[in-house]
Amino acid sequence: MSSNSNRTSTTPLLDTIHTPGDLKSLSDGELARLADELRTDVIDIVSETGGHLGSGLGVVELTVALHAVFDTPEDTLIWDVSHQCYPHKVLTGRRDRMRTLRKKDGLSGFTKRSESPYDPFGAAHSSTSISAGLGFAVARDLEGKDGHVVCVIGDGAMTAGMAYEGFNNAGHLNSRMIVILNDNNMSISPPTGALSDHLNTLAQSDTVQRERSFFENMGFAYHGPVDGHDIPTLLATLRHLKEEGTGPVVLHAITRKGAGYVHAEAASDKYHGVSKFDVPSGKQSKSVPKAPSYTKVFANALIEEARQDDRVIAITAAMAEGTGVDLFGKQYPDRSFDVGIAEQHAVTFAGGLAAGGMRPFCAIYSTFLQRGYDQVVHDIALQNLPVRFAIDRAGLVGADGATHAGAFDIGFLANLPNFTVMAAADEAELVNMVKTAAEHDLGPIAFRYPRGEGTGAQLPVQPVALPIGKGRIVDIGHTAALLSFGGRLEQCLEARALLSALGISVTVADARFAKPLDTELIEDLVETHELLVTVEEGATGGFGALVLHHLADKGLLDGRCGVRTMTLPDTFISQASPWEMYNEAGLNARQIADLVRVTLSRMGHGSQVTLGGGTTRIQDRPLWTHHAEDR
Amino acid sequence: MSSNSNRTSTTPLLDTIHTPGDLKSLSDGELARLADELRTDVIDIVSETGGHLGSGLGVVELTVALHAVFDTPEDTLIWDVSHQCYPHKVLTGRRDRMRTLRKKDGLSGFTKRSESPYDPFGAAHSSTSISAGLGFAVARDLEGKDGHVVCVIGDGAMTAGMAYEGFNNAGHLNSRMIVILNDNNMSISPPTGALSDHLNTLAQSDTVQRERSFFENMGFAYHGPVDGHDIPTLLATLRHLKEEGTGPVVLHAITRKGAGYVHAEAASDKYHGVSKFDVPSGKQSKSVPKAPSYTKVFANALIEEARQDDRVIAITAAMAEGTGVDLFGKQYPDRSFDVGIAEQHAVTFAGGLAAGGMRPFCAIYSTFLQRGYDQVVHDIALQNLPVRFAIDRAGLVGADGATHAGAFDIGFLANLPNFTVMAAADEAELVNMVKTAAEHDLGPIAFRYPRGEGTGAQLPVQPVALPIGKGRIVDIGHTAALLSFGGRLEQCLEARALLSALGISVTVADARFAKPLDTELIEDLVETHELLVTVEEGATGGFGALVLHHLADKGLLDGRCGVRTMTLPDTFISQASPWEMYNEAGLNARQIADLVRVTLSRMGHGSQVTLGGGTTRIQDRPLWTHHAEDR
Repeated sequence: MSSNSNRTSTTPLLDTIHTPGDLKSLSDGELARLADELRTDVIDIVSETGGHLGSGLGVVELTVALHAVFDTPEDTLIWDVSHQCYPHKVLTGRRDRMRTLRKKDGLSGFTKRSESPYDPFGAAHSSTSISAGLGFAVARDLEGKDGHVVCVIGDGAMTAGMAYEGFNNAGHLNSRMIVILNDNNMSISPPTGALSDHLNTLAQSDTVQRERSFFENMGFAYHGPVDGHDIPTLLATLRHLKEEGTGPVVLHAITRKGAGYVHAEAASDKYHGVSKFDVPSGKQSKSVPKAPSYTKVFANALIEEARQDDRVIAITAAMAEGTGVDLFGKQYPDRSFDVGIAEQHAVTFAGGLAAGGMRPFCAIYSTFLQRGYDQVVHDIALQNLPVRFAIDRAGLVGADGATHAGAFDIGFLANLPNFTVMAAADEAELVNMVKTAAEHDLGPIAFRYPRGEGTGAQLPVQPVALPIGKGRIVDIGHTAALLSFGGRLEQCLEARALLSALGISVTVADARFAKPLDTELIEDLVETHELLVTVEEGATGGFGALVLHHLADKGLLDGRCGVRTMTLPDTFISQASPWEMYNEAGLNARQIADLVRVTLSRMGHGSQVTLGGGTTRIQDRPLWTHHAEDR
Repeated sequence: MSSNSNRTSTTPLLDTIHTPGDLKSLSDGELARLADELRTDVIDIVSETGGHLGSGLGVVELTVALHAVFDTPEDTLIWDVSHQCYPHKVLTGRRDRMRTLRKKDGLSGFTKRSESPYDPFGAAHSSTSISAGLGFAVARDLEGKDGHVVCVIGDGAMTAGMAYEGFNNAGHLNSRMIVILNDNNMSISPPTGALSDHLNTLAQSDTVQRERSFFENMGFAYHGPVDGHDIPTLLATLRHLKEEGTGPVVLHAITRKGAGYVHAEAASDKYHGVSKFDVPSGKQSKSVPKAPSYTKVFANALIEEARQDDRVIAITAAMAEGTGVDLFGKQYPDRSFDVGIAEQHAVTFAGGLAAGGMRPFCAIYSTFLQRGYDQVVHDIALQNLPVRFAIDRAGLVGADGATHAGAFDIGFLANLPNFTVMAAADEAELVNMVKTAAEHDLGPIAFRYPRGEGTGAQLPVQPVALPIGKGRIVDIGHTAALLSFGGRLEQCLEARALLSALGISVTVADARFAKPLDTELIEDLVETHELLVTVEEGATGGFGALVLHHLADKGLLDGRCGVRTMTLPDTFISQASPWEMYNEAGLNARQIADLVRVTLSRMGHGSQVTLGGGTTRIQDRPLWTHHAEDR
């Protein structure tokens, strides 16, 4: 199918490409034509699926040239962050599944080892490619094998210390590896940092000299810059690098984010991640939200705190729009800091601000806070500094899948001494938690909240600081108690309604705090119910674990009240809608209700319950599928 | 007391210095004399206390000059890592307590906010000072205040990406701060990385130019280099920097680690951290170990694995000696990698090696693995790559105190999908765990082990791979079961003996695995005992939490068997001997025995037990102090 006979000037070349090997028989001119077709294809695909657009369009020619010159998958090609991997996926046997991008059971929006041998090292977090590539290169050398290792890094990833660590070690070890610096002078947020400032102020020739000296200091040879959209130049340069030279080398390629699609080039930040859109007009079809997003509610609440207190400061690590710090920055530019993809620095910088008398809010996604974990432990918790952590994207996040899930923060924060850890059950709670955090000067405090729209809860006109370590009863019952920590409260209330229809009376409580625990509330619940179930949007070792530890310490796991913990399951859950992902996790209303019903039945809870006018025996098999015990 | 009248040429100047303010009245010549006295004092102190010597001796003149020129504590002086802070402590009102260094209730071996207002930001982990200092500088600017921020960084700290993140952001923000680059061409391990290689090969003038361009690219003005041991030059330069200039500036000071003490200059690595020593001869009085250290046992076991399998690789992040990777490297230099203080890179580099078919062992202290946590989650666990994590210094570590405690790794690893997590109860177990890890290609695996000497256990002649997820019964009893995970096993056995003397029959089991749990063993224990107590050298949310989660899921928290978890308490424990620290934590044998005895009593366990020939009532008050429930 990839033979030349199939190709005429009217047959799309792209239809003849099933693996990168099919590129080998194309002329340089045909490869340039193929790149144009690939660009159109990617635009069409993303117009239907949504996803990351600008980054992929910026590397269309690079993708074609790399696959034409190198012999993937024997040669190792690693895309840093991998926002830009859609053209790569099209060329590596996944074109027919591109419309399933970021959907349940579909292709991941990122490179993923389990998806394709052409994805030797998956990514989604930034700046890992040099380190991973060096591992492949050293393994190759130790085994005495041939083959190339090529890493494509750019798009802001150079602001992260991890990239610096990787370059520094790679230069030292001197293994052959080829790094493509994809320089589009742009990151998700506008590029940040002195290095970037400096380069922007220099003449082109000086800029190149600086880049060269930076990489040469790191022990890399430097080639370029080259036009990253010029196929013949790319082909010639890559062929040269494939055949000649030893040791690590950087090829500096200048690209334009969103290249070849006028709407994406004109507003590259708006086209970094997109909804479905109309190709000619570029108009994105965003669904009308039912309620404001948690992110926006957080931003507005923080702006209000800042209005009242000029010690309030917002910090983001290259996610100004994602965290709402961009909105804060419009109001308070002097008190808003985007430090780049530098979570380690962000956390300790916040620590310095707190030690200096400020009230810093460090707004970082749950999954990215992992990047600053030692700083959270060593600089913040240990010194008991009042840094406020606004943890967006807590729990399962939908289309971005497992790499972006905020699964572990409850455990990794609430088990640290000195920390106060909250989770918002809805956006009204979030507003009060912002106030609570602002006023909490006794030590570090974190509040987590989900991605996406709120529940539609009425926002408080006058935010109030919550009493530290106190939860609340939302609905009173007498048989089972659901103790929710965070965003599952709505599902718990739905579960309560389902169980009520079966004649099972359920209390629903909102813990608000994983630390300090509301021990009085917890002890009351176990003393007055037959079953206590904790529910959280996080892994084991978090809220439920702390409840169990407390009950064990107090000798309250004595069988008078059964206890169950509902957490994220012990698996990474691939992309789908958040509802589907929580269904897979077993944390939706019906599954919560099932667990309560089945557990009560197994515990021998009164065999007859009233249902409507008559009586019915509680089933000990689930009424619904996907019950929590399946996990 | 600081008046000139007290000073004659024969009175030690140092005796007249009670706060840094007392330096202001000294002439430049007197300051030079003071520096000499300070050096002698530090040598004397450390010869008695042990601790970090070489780093402090390298900054004696710098310390005197900084405190003479700047107005601490109003000016903010931050010592990176703070290995080098002993001279600073002597000058800042702590001279009379220097002999308590690193001892229980004594001075910390590091800077510590709670210890002194002259320690505005504590440290012990590396490369945090620029980020923290920037926070202070920005806070000062926002409040419209005056005052200087001075950070002293060097000694290898520049290999960490965090330093790069801090410099890059500080240059961008352009706040005034003064960074002293303490360049002694040396770190804990020999300096690593291409930047360092490169500088070493250049002529002095080229080196300076490169350094200058590195910092200027980051937006810092550059001064120097100056002789960091020349008091008049330091005073003049610092006075100039104090009075003149805006924006961030680096002062490059060349120092010698161990300066002024011949034995420390000659073997700077051996004098980084020292035992007590004899000043004239430099001979350190290391106590004779009863058993080989866990570190050495690990190194030898790994060397043996490497002998049999050339895919076995060892990686350290600047702790070659501390982890035993130095020993490995002597045998297998090509398969040993010291990547510098770069844990993020170390982990993902190991991931690349594993994906490339190698069997990498990433040997990192528990506390430093926190630096690579996102890489553990995103690059290793999520991709299920078989990286082996050798986690040294697990649990409480003694003189290095809270900053170096390995308290959180059980929780932050065992709650990740795909991970296998082991802990070694003794050095024989460790040998088998190295084998187990070497053979485990199914996914990531970690094994943790304590600092210091082993228990004296007989090492296996032929190591065996342990069955994954299986613990072992060590001693059989019938009333209470102690389920130990890791190094507390010895204490559990002692507790068993204490309880046996009281007529309480105790089973002791070694879980070996926190993940996967040996659910069969755990279920057996709760079915056949009245009380199950888990014991671990880690925080809540770890092993005990996973046992509780499992028992809850299975409905086994039904009161037939009481369950308690013994973990590290919810506080950071300051330096002392490991035994003292565990005593404070409530995890020593008597405290374990007390918890069992008291709990059984409260549970109404048979009121009469046989003790010796007669019978006695179980007391429900502890016989011993510091019982676990006090925490």
